[in-house]
Amino acid sequence: MIVAFQGVHGAYSEAAARNLFGRSTHAVPMETFDGVFRAVQQGDADRGIVPIENSLAGSIHQNYDLLLSHRLKIVAETHLRIEHVLMAHPSASLRTLQSVRSHPQALAQCSRFLARHPRWKVVPYFDTAGAAQSIIDGGDTRSGAIASEFAARLYKLNVLKRNIENLRDNFTRFLVIGRKPCRLQRGVPTKCSVAFRPARNQVGILFRLLGVFALRDIDLLKIESRPDPHSPFQYLFYVDFAGSPLEQRVRRALEHLQEMTAEFRLLGAYPDDRSIRKRRR
Amino acid sequence: MIVAFQGVHGAYSEAAARNLFGRSTHAVPMETFDGVFRAVQQGDADRGIVPIENSLAGSIHQNYDLLLSHRLKIVAETHLRIEHVLMAHPSASLRTLQSVRSHPQALAQCSRFLARHPRWKVVPYFDTAGAAQSIIDGGDTRSGAIASEFAARLYKLNVLKRNIENLRDNFTRFLVIGRKPCRLQRGVPTKCSVAFRPARNQVGILFRLLGVFALRDIDLLKIESRPDPHSPFQYLFYVDFAGSPLEQRVRRALEHLQEMTAEFRLLGAYPDDRSIRKRRR
Repeated sequence: MIVAFQGVHGAYSEAAARNLFGRSTHAVPMETFDGVFRAVQQGDADRGIVPIENSLAGSIHQNYDLLLSHRLKIVAETHLRIEHVLMAHPSASLRTLQSVRSHPQALAQCSRFLARHPRWKVVPYFDTAGAAQSIIDGGDTRSGAIASEFAARLYKLNVLKRNIENLRDNFTRFLVIGRKPCRLQRGVPTKCSVAFRPARNQVGILFRLLGVFALRDIDLLKIESRPDPHSPFQYLFYVDFAGSPLEQRVRRALEHLQEMTAEFRLLGAYPDDRSIRKRRR
Repeated sequence: MIVAFQGVHGAYSEAAARNLFGRSTHAVPMETFDGVFRAVQQGDADRGIVPIENSLAGSIHQNYDLLLSHRLKIVAETHLRIEHVLMAHPSASLRTLQSVRSHPQALAQCSRFLARHPRWKVVPYFDTAGAAQSIIDGGDTRSGAIASEFAARLYKLNVLKRNIENLRDNFTRFLVIGRKPCRLQRGVPTKCSVAFRPARNQVGILFRLLGVFALRDIDLLKIESRPDPHSPFQYLFYVDFAGSPLEQRVRRALEHLQEMTAEFRLLGAYPDDRSIRKRRR
């Protein structure tokens, strides 16, 4: 199984792919999210994996845009807790470090830990895994990197400190995309992701659209509106709901929704990954 | 008027504050968003300005969290088009540049332009305005920075190239926060931002909650659900709607919503800034 991801080896996206598909996954790095979609569309990869929302940073609209502009399907989802660790060359220690590098967002998420070490120079980097890689490539014994534990293992760096992020509730939800829809099974909790633009921009239109689900006792899991970047005064909606197109009420709800919308896309139907919830119980 | 913003002088947040409050605004930089909220709460600043959503990157949940954990009010909003420019020392030119620095996200947003100049080394930086500032501070004639035109003027850098971003539809919506609610005026289009958690997690609850607005012909402008970081299995909702608490139907809708929710916050009522729409007509 060849899985395309954005970033360099050791990225959180690659860690998510390995959690989902196993360690033997052949993960192929791409420079951009667009590159991930193209690799799957052209058949260079079997699957692509992209982050779609983070518990602190929110939804990544850019990847919704790519889902809408490609004819690919969401075939799976997975949640990953973002656990930053400080890593360094095996010969370095907390006392010998002089600087720490990472992506500015990861540095900001670890600001309290870094503030306790004012001696360290904090250096921005393109991405977390790239910061880890650069330490090994440069044989640098004075710099640390903030990245995933997976990156530390991959680049054979020493973990100097775990759980250094300010807030623990840092989860990212990743979507897996493929060329063909997921083969659904009865009895497996399934969710559907849809995107639509209402047929008319009238007051209360969203209420009516949600009636399609409520009147069939279909549970909504996510809803988000967004000004349509291509049509001023229009809104796009992203909705995730619990249910499978194998169920008649879901097929009817989707038909009903298409009657009431100017644009409609079933982005995918796939098993519901409740890993976060399970872990928290 | 003292306005706190996150970043260094020349940041897009400061540009947004000046657009809204005029050039004589005394804008005070803070290291973190949390610092912006604290400055307003403690009276060190009259107002704070924070980005809440970007057309490409989505909503910034962290700032919603800060709105919920502080007793401050949204008193205004403003939209800013993010227009990246390439700037450099007055003695530099496109031909003499050897490297370009900026925040990784801004570099990614200008990737097509940068790909046309493969000679340039691309260097990550903490923020766009800081990259601009570092060029002047270092007297560096070989490095360019990608930041706002406002930053170029502020640091007296030469603009070498405008509109270098891949996608033009890059807007950020900023919220202005203060200690007291905005003084509303009749006849001025007003919007309200609310956050709530439904009283029960039952199927169709969101449909019922939106009925509060639909049945009173109140137009929704934004809706977003989010798993509550503090209560697993629970959702928080963010809703913006058109209307003012000066109107009876709006006051009644807010009362009705409070009946049906376990947690409810009116985050603010403030003039509706339709600058994007106006500009696009």
